[in-house]
Amino acid sequence: MQVLKTTPRADGFRLPAEWEPHAQTWMVWPIRPDNWRLNAVPAQVAFAAVAKAIARFEGVTVCASEAELSNARAMLNHANIRVIEIATDDAWARDTGPTFVTNNQGEVRGIDWEFNAWGGLNGGLYWPWKNDDAVAKIILEIENVPRYRTDGFVLEGGSIHVDGEGTIITTEECLLNKNRNPHMSREAIEEMLRNYLNIEKVIWLPHGLFNDETDGHVDNFCCYVKPGEVLLAWTDDKNDPNSSRCHAAMQVLETTRDAKGRKFIVHKMPIPGPLYATADECAGVAPVAGTQLRDPSVRLAGSYVNFLIVNRGIIAPSFGDPKDADAEAILKKVFPQHEVVMVPGREILLGGGNIHCITQQQPQQQPAAATVLAK
Amino acid sequence: MQVLKTTPRADGFRLPAEWEPHAQTWMVWPIRPDNWRLNAVPAQVAFAAVAKAIARFEGVTVCASEAELSNARAMLNHANIRVIEIATDDAWARDTGPTFVTNNQGEVRGIDWEFNAWGGLNGGLYWPWKNDDAVAKIILEIENVPRYRTDGFVLEGGSIHVDGEGTIITTEECLLNKNRNPHMSREAIEEMLRNYLNIEKVIWLPHGLFNDETDGHVDNFCCYVKPGEVLLAWTDDKNDPNSSRCHAAMQVLETTRDAKGRKFIVHKMPIPGPLYATADECAGVAPVAGTQLRDPSVRLAGSYVNFLIVNRGIIAPSFGDPKDADAEAILKKVFPQHEVVMVPGREILLGGGNIHCITQQQPQQQPAAATVLAK
Repeated sequence: MQVLKTTPRADGFRLPAEWEPHAQTWMVWPIRPDNWRLNAVPAQVAFAAVAKAIARFEGVTVCASEAELSNARAMLNHANIRVIEIATDDAWARDTGPTFVTNNQGEVRGIDWEFNAWGGLNGGLYWPWKNDDAVAKIILEIENVPRYRTDGFVLEGGSIHVDGEGTIITTEECLLNKNRNPHMSREAIEEMLRNYLNIEKVIWLPHGLFNDETDGHVDNFCCYVKPGEVLLAWTDDKNDPNSSRCHAAMQVLETTRDAKGRKFIVHKMPIPGPLYATADECAGVAPVAGTQLRDPSVRLAGSYVNFLIVNRGIIAPSFGDPKDADAEAILKKVFPQHEVVMVPGREILLGGGNIHCITQQQPQQQPAAATVLAK
Repeated sequence: MQVLKTTPRADGFRLPAEWEPHAQTWMVWPIRPDNWRLNAVPAQVAFAAVAKAIARFEGVTVCASEAELSNARAMLNHANIRVIEIATDDAWARDTGPTFVTNNQGEVRGIDWEFNAWGGLNGGLYWPWKNDDAVAKIILEIENVPRYRTDGFVLEGGSIHVDGEGTIITTEECLLNKNRNPHMSREAIEEMLRNYLNIEKVIWLPHGLFNDETDGHVDNFCCYVKPGEVLLAWTDDKNDPNSSRCHAAMQVLETTRDAKGRKFIVHKMPIPGPLYATADECAGVAPVAGTQLRDPSVRLAGSYVNFLIVNRGIIAPSFGDPKDADAEAILKKVFPQHEVVMVPGREILLGGGNIHCITQQQPQQQPAAATVLAK
């Protein structure tokens, strides 16, 4: 399959907002015993519940490795879920899947960012990551969607959120981190975002959530609910290490206008917990050298902001926490046209992320383009 | 994904002729060291040449097992070829892939026949075959094509040829073989063909080619070139064990009319050779118990009839045989609107088949249906 040598902006493509109509959502089946406790069985139960929740609203495709294919098919047996075989290193479709872009004619293309496991050999979470770096390409091939590849530029889908109208929100902690694109200035990175996502303005939050092992992905901290309106993870507890992060983000959001000149409306979303893995939970993770250690004294980066918008629905994590009900109420308020579905997210959090991290939406396209392989 | 509980005939779908427009062609990458000599490397070279020949005319998707994915991608590097990961047992897309059917609105569905490796434990060619039995399902899922499944009814795509106008040609040697559907009468099998392929008349040739390890697949012996007109493998040598087979088939074709009441025009296609594997070639095959033995004294079932019709092209095997030129001339004569491309087929023949056996065309569909997973 050919790689496009141009950029989405030059070709008239842009990253749509997550609430624009989806064709389907992609996921990857978890298997790593050094990341998911008890050989990933509890995580698989959690992922299956997420897939089935999404499948009420739109189709889901789950990528599973050969050894897990039969099990995945059995656990994901649902008329609206298909399981296909793709070799992967871990299960974060948001970061390893393609970023789909669309044009005004309803055509869809995909961006295949270079992926280095959130930091490569300088703080990344595992090695090797070559299967994961190939996931976007394979998904685009399966869908016969033309592909842009950014060799030499590392980015994960979880580190960006857009309003579909020219503004992107990201974090300095992640995008300016030396373990992503150390050869590039802030301005050069902005230029890449402009050319590939077709945005006009970059909103830089200083940090993401405390202890987020992705180096502060915005999708675990702050997200759009509509143009000009965001949810921000929030604590009023001055002793919480998130406090300064929340205030710094609020400062940016209150003093910056978006690409359309709008001031931001910011809804505060409580942070669950503080949440910690139990000793038992940590003991279930295979202690393989070179991968992320699990320690019951290390606070988990739990967040209700880490949800997925699907066609007419919101799929959000619950934690068995007293703040679950508040989070659900806030989501219902800011998404009055959507049905809010809370799905247990603790097992996904134990692996380092949540529902938004393990999903990647594929926008709906006009019917003309998809059927012919040869273009 | 859901399985359709009806039949193609009841739903208004029929098996189109191979010359009707294709969306693409499917292949499977060869790997079995007990079938393909020298760890399948020469066969891979041959398959890649076939894929690239087809890719001049239409898209090709090649299914490769995880362990061979990188190699397959490298050997099939071509703008019109995609490689996807599917676990398989062997590499015969004609027989393990779906049989695609279409309706008058240009919609496409697929038939997922039960597959038992050409005879199951009663003369089949390998065990287990569960990956191969799943290939059709997986391909249909990847393409989001609705699926019919014939549990309890075994059939391979290579055992049938249709004219797209109500007539099917098959062989008694294969379809009435006790190792396929021993519980069913000839009439019950005809009824299955009628209901799934939407045909009106079955032409039963007594046999396929001598020593064809598929139990006489028609696609190695006799094929349509247009409605009412066929190519039949032929020898004038009375001592050739194919002689009685050819004459028996000719007798049927000369005395039978098709579903439209037409008499058949039969073109004789010479049989190459006789061809035999060399001792060296046989020695390169891993002698695994339970799989097909290779013996230089056993005549190979080489045939020029085993070609694929693609959009505006004919992809046909050559054997380095004096009759290659005759075969090419005949194909050019009977397909005046197509470009005839001869591709070396000996390595494929050594594995038990040829170009038609290792390919499966997917008909073009109208643009409306393919993009949405959830129907």
